[in-house]
Amino acid sequence: MDERSSKQRIVVVGGGFAGLTFVGTLKAGAAEITLIDQRNHHLFQPLLYQVATASLTPSDIAWPIRHVLRKRRDVRTLLGSVTGVETARRVVRLADGGEIPYDTLVLATGARHSYFGHDDWEPFATGLKTVEDATAVRQRILSAFERAECESDPAERAAWMTFVVVGGGPTGVEMAGAIAELAHATLQGEFRLIDPAQARIVLVEAGERLLPSFETGLSAYARAALERRGVAVRLGEAVTLCDAEGVRLGEERIRAHTLVWAAGVEASPAGEWLGVPTDRAGRVVVEPDLTVPGHPEIFVLGDTAAVRDARGKAVPGIAPAAKQQGAFAARVVAARLAGHTAPARFSYGDRGSLATIGKRAAVIDFGKIRLRGWLAWWLWGLAHVYFLIGVRNRLSVALSWLWIHARDQRPARLITGQPRPAAPAADGTEETGRG
Amino acid sequence: MDERSSKQRIVVVGGGFAGLTFVGTLKAGAAEITLIDQRNHHLFQPLLYQVATASLTPSDIAWPIRHVLRKRRDVRTLLGSVTGVETARRVVRLADGGEIPYDTLVLATGARHSYFGHDDWEPFATGLKTVEDATAVRQRILSAFERAECESDPAERAAWMTFVVVGGGPTGVEMAGAIAELAHATLQGEFRLIDPAQARIVLVEAGERLLPSFETGLSAYARAALERRGVAVRLGEAVTLCDAEGVRLGEERIRAHTLVWAAGVEASPAGEWLGVPTDRAGRVVVEPDLTVPGHPEIFVLGDTAAVRDARGKAVPGIAPAAKQQGAFAARVVAARLAGHTAPARFSYGDRGSLATIGKRAAVIDFGKIRLRGWLAWWLWGLAHVYFLIGVRNRLSVALSWLWIHARDQRPARLITGQPRPAAPAADGTEETGRG
Repeated sequence: MDERSSKQRIVVVGGGFAGLTFVGTLKAGAAEITLIDQRNHHLFQPLLYQVATASLTPSDIAWPIRHVLRKRRDVRTLLGSVTGVETARRVVRLADGGEIPYDTLVLATGARHSYFGHDDWEPFATGLKTVEDATAVRQRILSAFERAECESDPAERAAWMTFVVVGGGPTGVEMAGAIAELAHATLQGEFRLIDPAQARIVLVEAGERLLPSFETGLSAYARAALERRGVAVRLGEAVTLCDAEGVRLGEERIRAHTLVWAAGVEASPAGEWLGVPTDRAGRVVVEPDLTVPGHPEIFVLGDTAAVRDARGKAVPGIAPAAKQQGAFAARVVAARLAGHTAPARFSYGDRGSLATIGKRAAVIDFGKIRLRGWLAWWLWGLAHVYFLIGVRNRLSVALSWLWIHARDQRPARLITGQPRPAAPAADGTEETGRG
Repeated sequence: MDERSSKQRIVVVGGGFAGLTFVGTLKAGAAEITLIDQRNHHLFQPLLYQVATASLTPSDIAWPIRHVLRKRRDVRTLLGSVTGVETARRVVRLADGGEIPYDTLVLATGARHSYFGHDDWEPFATGLKTVEDATAVRQRILSAFERAECESDPAERAAWMTFVVVGGGPTGVEMAGAIAELAHATLQGEFRLIDPAQARIVLVEAGERLLPSFETGLSAYARAALERRGVAVRLGEAVTLCDAEGVRLGEERIRAHTLVWAAGVEASPAGEWLGVPTDRAGRVVVEPDLTVPGHPEIFVLGDTAAVRDARGKAVPGIAPAAKQQGAFAARVVAARLAGHTAPARFSYGDRGSLATIGKRAAVIDFGKIRLRGWLAWWLWGLAHVYFLIGVRNRLSVALSWLWIHARDQRPARLITGQPRPAAPAADGTEETGRG
């Protein structure tokens, strides 16, 4: 302990893409690192929608953080919940009353979904940020078909067979496409009273086009590909209400018992912990070197930070950006430890954007090269398998995807957890009516 | 519908081994079958302990019932909760107020764990019957090590690193062996303050020996194999208390924050629905042809039934017995439908018992042939892969097992769900003391 405590103490909060890349980039032994996360696992969030739609199982895309870092003897992994930071005393406070002192602090705590001031919509429109979110959405989607099969009232049955996805970014597009394939292919022939192919899937986007971060031709392709799969795409229309009966779009009511929220995120409360200015989404406005103004010893990374590149353009909240920020911060810290001049400005290298719509349909925007269709789909799959951690998970995910491709069967069609906790009014009313 | 409704209506409650085998054995089109289960999946319960110990993922051992039966156009699968049976009107009542009429009723609703009148022990000693049970036990085991890593008080740390398994049947033996391997091999080198190899695993069995249904030599081998793996085996001692602090064995207190209950089961309430005599474990005492006395149109199968073979010996509550009963009942129904004489007496064919203790250590009791050690272990693995449903699950489970065998890594080490809901007193006290 004596030898260790003479070293610089680095505390990293959050074992997501930014935090893990920071630790991985920093040379072992350079400092005494403590990584704190409130979950025991790193989660590959870009594939969370595949857990929500029964294609992958949670452990396919989640790894115990301490296992990933097991060979790093200089890293201590703590499962704990951070409640605050005392910047004057340089300690991180934990929910169990403990305190962890730091010389350098890295906050990479990610984002949660945001309902733009309508937090009362959350029980009805589940977002996708955690494993529990994904299994809850999976349960809601799969049990909606089960409820429809038992329902004798045609209007109620239709409401159980209507799925509304709010938000036309990559997650919304991928969810809508996957629900369509689940309904139209996977569940085919398994019900006796309903026809899952009659399910109505509505994708709502308030903006002018889907996938706004992609080139316009790819947005148009995504829309057409979704419509070919039976998804009703509603552009330029904002959801004005989410409740147990569905959504409202302007004056129109869409009756649906299953809503998925993919419309917006807000940063985790790192800004509140620090008491520093944040942008509208709660992200800490950081210096060009990703440190907090006035606190060169505190870095804020990934979805928790509002970062602008050299040309003033906002860096997007996606995994590659978070990884690049983690690696950059590690280089700054390493330079400081070595007494060298630290790099002064983070520069984002846009590696392109990928989104999948369904079987043999994806879009890839590399800037110069743009792809769509089956080639993009195969590349999307290969890229994602490549980015997973560990040979076993790559094999398992590849096996599942090949199986889905060949057989349209999805391997994780489990309804688990509490049944449909999120629509009490509708359920209660309906059951009383029938009882 | 007209053609269907002229047929015999068979209602099967429960999609476990007995119920599914009943449907699978009955020739398609012979009747109009409704299968009701409160879960959407058939669960391979013999491997549930592997989900609880992070070796397999829930979807490895669970299949959507309606997918298994998708080609049986004569079968309607219903996700529903049965609340009662009106034998006079021949209808099954559902929780949503619906009623399903039957001509023949098959009740195969399984068993729950039983605390022998101490239901207040349940929050502290989780049993293993459902997917949720297994992920809850997994969460408790994995987070116990996390809590130990954060704990400064040596006595508390020891309580977090002590695991008590109650019950020395196959599930208890398998759980104790798997926890020992998790602690001594899988988690090796991943913690900085605790040494998981120091974990104390205690297996308590009130009887004279482990695995009482096996030959005595195999029981002795199982005990020695567990002790070699660092499990403390306590025979002839009954648990007299389970609480947040651990267990009491007679006068002795074993402090442990993680208890697993594998000591006893009681039948689901089919006996109450029917209002017929049950044995002490709540099982319906059935006729030799597995029907309910006075109700030849009602069969009770599997763990819900108290069945005796021709020599008066109780048929054990294991998967092969349940499957044989399902197949027998289907033959009785088929014979009745064809106007033939139905077989009058179920006869149990004992195919032997298998249990695994850990890597390269299992016991197999085929009666004439008895095996133990590595050969038994490989046979155990092959047999279980063989009994799984579907090529994909077999590949996935085989992949996981080969991985565990080669690397000692367990693929599903996720802590999910609500954190440690089951020991509020201990957690609360401790945290107040530290805060």
